[in-house]
Amino acid sequence: MITSADNEKLKTIRKLQQKSWRTKLGLFSAEGEDLVDAAAAAGHEPALVLRAGEDVDPDLLDAVSTLGSGTRVIGVYEQRWVDPAGEVLVYLHGVEDPGNVGAIIRSAHALADATVVLGPGCADPYSPKAVRASMGSIFARPPARAAVDALDGKKLALDATAERQLRDVDVAGPVVLVLGSERGVLPEGLEAVRIPVHADSLNVAMAATVALYEVANRMAADG
Amino acid sequence: MITSADNEKLKTIRKLQQKSWRTKLGLFSAEGEDLVDAAAAAGHEPALVLRAGEDVDPDLLDAVSTLGSGTRVIGVYEQRWVDPAGEVLVYLHGVEDPGNVGAIIRSAHALADATVVLGPGCADPYSPKAVRASMGSIFARPPARAAVDALDGKKLALDATAERQLRDVDVAGPVVLVLGSERGVLPEGLEAVRIPVHADSLNVAMAATVALYEVANRMAADG
Repeated sequence: MITSADNEKLKTIRKLQQKSWRTKLGLFSAEGEDLVDAAAAAGHEPALVLRAGEDVDPDLLDAVSTLGSGTRVIGVYEQRWVDPAGEVLVYLHGVEDPGNVGAIIRSAHALADATVVLGPGCADPYSPKAVRASMGSIFARPPARAAVDALDGKKLALDATAERQLRDVDVAGPVVLVLGSERGVLPEGLEAVRIPVHADSLNVAMAATVALYEVANRMAADG
Repeated sequence: MITSADNEKLKTIRKLQQKSWRTKLGLFSAEGEDLVDAAAAAGHEPALVLRAGEDVDPDLLDAVSTLGSGTRVIGVYEQRWVDPAGEVLVYLHGVEDPGNVGAIIRSAHALADATVVLGPGCADPYSPKAVRASMGSIFARPPARAAVDALDGKKLALDATAERQLRDVDVAGPVVLVLGSERGVLPEGLEAVRIPVHADSLNVAMAATVALYEVANRMAADG
């Protein structure tokens, strides 16, 4: 039972709150039973796991938690990065909010079993906030890193100012859905499509959710 | 310039963090420029507004903020409740998380210009967290309260275990999308439909977003 805040495992967990340490160590942490269970379900073995009252003094675990309410368990895992593959990909460009990155990983998994590819300027998908927002989908469908030019398939850039609607575009082959930040600029030379809205308040995660549904649903209906 | 924490306006704002006071006073608060601007754009005049450095000492405003980082402006507004009307309605049953209630109000506004109707067991849409998650759509499309039996239109209950898919249902007339909590029970006697998923991780706000897109999109295509 760990009873000192100077313990090396607790120090590692504290370091993993910083991106520089996550990158250096190639690790990340996941807090709470749901995420640790999701890792196990995806066959992802922890490098280390600490349970309050079993492995560590509960107050010490709370002290290294990123949750205001503290936590009962923290697992540390190796980061996984995959090669982009599949009928549907989501490419993110400059999506800086970790909650949005995590939510899109969750939607991609749920609606299209799709991999999310991170381009320049995106939040770290292995930050505590992104991992939490993914609700465990980060374990089931790890992210990829690539330039948009390196991806195969028809590239459709979601853009609220586009003339064509997503539903009017043929999606027979592999499709890459390209999404940017709400204020940012998308890569050039892509086919721009929009989701019809009544009010200008669809954020990037909602747009991704709708686009993933539309594409996966149409592929299933045609196939 | 308010320089005392005992000021009546600051006390009112502090009280409005509690549902009992919000209900008693029929008021709610909105924090931050974006929400105060959204209120103005919707023609919703504040009962009171306090700006840091102009009307109130910034530290005192931060002390009554519900945001960890503090805020530069807080507006207080009258709660508005509308009668349910329109081609598309969203009926929520037992959706306890205020972030989900706010996100669904936002999606309903953006994708279908639709009103959200709150049934039993739902979070207060005028709580600070719900107002924030609505991103101002609470001002543009205020919520309604009603029993599901009192609503007109074809009632479609989103249920992950249903056999029929939402896309296979006729949506010519008025439609009421009925959504419950992730673990809860929906009202009986409704037509159950599902959104096809690859993994069981679609939360109620994501399901609402997809369903609103599907229904609004089909109505627009048919109309």
